[in-house]
Amino acid sequence: MTEKVGLIGPGLMGQPMGSNLLKAGYPLWVYSRTPERAQPLADEGATVCASPKEVAEKADIIITIVSDTPDVETVVLGDDGLIHGLSEGKVVVDMSTISASATRKIAATLAERGVEMLDAPVSGGDIGAKAGTLSIMVGGKDAVFERVKPLFEVMGKNIVHVGDIGAGQVAKTCNQMLVAQHVNAAAEALLLAKKCGADPRKVREALLGGFAASRVLEVHGMRMLDRDFEPGFKAKLHKKDMRIAMEIIDELNMDLPATKLATEGINRAVEEGLGEADTTSVIQIIEKKNDVSLA
Amino acid sequence: MTEKVGLIGPGLMGQPMGSNLLKAGYPLWVYSRTPERAQPLADEGATVCASPKEVAEKADIIITIVSDTPDVETVVLGDDGLIHGLSEGKVVVDMSTISASATRKIAATLAERGVEMLDAPVSGGDIGAKAGTLSIMVGGKDAVFERVKPLFEVMGKNIVHVGDIGAGQVAKTCNQMLVAQHVNAAAEALLLAKKCGADPRKVREALLGGFAASRVLEVHGMRMLDRDFEPGFKAKLHKKDMRIAMEIIDELNMDLPATKLATEGINRAVEEGLGEADTTSVIQIIEKKNDVSLA
Repeated sequence: MTEKVGLIGPGLMGQPMGSNLLKAGYPLWVYSRTPERAQPLADEGATVCASPKEVAEKADIIITIVSDTPDVETVVLGDDGLIHGLSEGKVVVDMSTISASATRKIAATLAERGVEMLDAPVSGGDIGAKAGTLSIMVGGKDAVFERVKPLFEVMGKNIVHVGDIGAGQVAKTCNQMLVAQHVNAAAEALLLAKKCGADPRKVREALLGGFAASRVLEVHGMRMLDRDFEPGFKAKLHKKDMRIAMEIIDELNMDLPATKLATEGINRAVEEGLGEADTTSVIQIIEKKNDVSLA
Repeated sequence: MTEKVGLIGPGLMGQPMGSNLLKAGYPLWVYSRTPERAQPLADEGATVCASPKEVAEKADIIITIVSDTPDVETVVLGDDGLIHGLSEGKVVVDMSTISASATRKIAATLAERGVEMLDAPVSGGDIGAKAGTLSIMVGGKDAVFERVKPLFEVMGKNIVHVGDIGAGQVAKTCNQMLVAQHVNAAAEALLLAKKCGADPRKVREALLGGFAASRVLEVHGMRMLDRDFEPGFKAKLHKKDMRIAMEIIDELNMDLPATKLATEGINRAVEEGLGEADTTSVIQIIEKKNDVSLA
């Protein structure tokens, strides 16, 4: 039986993910707060719905991929939200990046209606979404994971069932902490090389073969060198993710200074007007402060 | 013609590098300040010399791989140093990690005798040295690089001629900056996961497929999880490398706060008695502060 799939939030990530589901033969019902965003998927055969509720009525597995915790809450629990159209046996798969504790609360509310939920945030950016090579970090029950897995396999490559509901979001928070710090590290290193008179492109190339290698140095390092700050992944969204990380850290009474420093760097970039640019643009702040540029 | 090769400093790195040169058929003359360290290579067929000077008399290409700037200065320019045995046409290849400016000065002194020099620091740890898969970052003249390249190819895999003399050391400094920050990032993220009740092994696995992937998360992350703090790469040597980085940063009047923070973390680890342990052991400092452990 081919699952009927719903998709709420066909944005930079959701649109190519939906497109890959359609190509794999899944019938798709789609809703966007901004109707024109649903059009590309409609052109590929998806049915556009007027509300999340309508998507929930039509589809069996409903994917949400929106910006922040309140957006997921609205889309799932609000007026015209999924919950008003869901019935027993249906599954909500939230692929947004939001708070783990909010995730657990939403899942508990859905469970009262016999509706299962997975949290399944992704990493890999729009490139990974288009190529169907996203990394997907999943929290939730085994049986539900197994049911949704074929859909994940259409959208991603490295699919890991991390643990119970919320664990996917915890993994994603860790992911964003690492990316933020790796971006900073790459920026500082390449700018030091430049300032020393070495060729930062050669340095990047040399470093990719050793212990300093990272996907960020590879992909985002190239962006920095090529001055390609088109998102990708917007700084303002990374700011939001780091806010979630800092909330968890405060909640747990932890002291993680490197994460804090990276958070401050991204906040600063957004304050200075780089929120709509790729998160890699934090290098511009470091460049200004040090009177040096990779450009 | 098979080059006659000299090796000064058969330690954790130099020993397996020399072993690979012997296996590839290069005759090898070796010197160690601590004579028993030369024994394993002698057992494989190397000739042990009584001084760097004697190595310089016997070999054409002399590799130095010792701990710090003063060690290289002593070995090359000191009493019984290489310089007293070198003659025109011979090449010194310093594969230690030392200051770029000291490198340029030593090269200038050697040039007065018609002796060429390359700086060719490595990354990849003892694992890479044994497997012959080191990343080698080379500074120096094209013709000299081409002459030594076959030797590099025996010891390493990713061999990049970064630029003029000193450029290899600049690249290595960047490498150590990245590794220090990546170790911190991995430690903070895995500890957050643990404290949230998620399985840090699963989180690591999930993250390796996405943008957070790094060689440090892969190799050092596993060390942290397995509590394997045998070096590898000693914290006290990483401290030395970060001191070099901070000296360059101060010299250039730069402000690179993430590098500074990572340096402080390693210094702290060495202060607390972890200098002989692998640099990954900085996680123990973060664990203590946050009352959580991956153990």
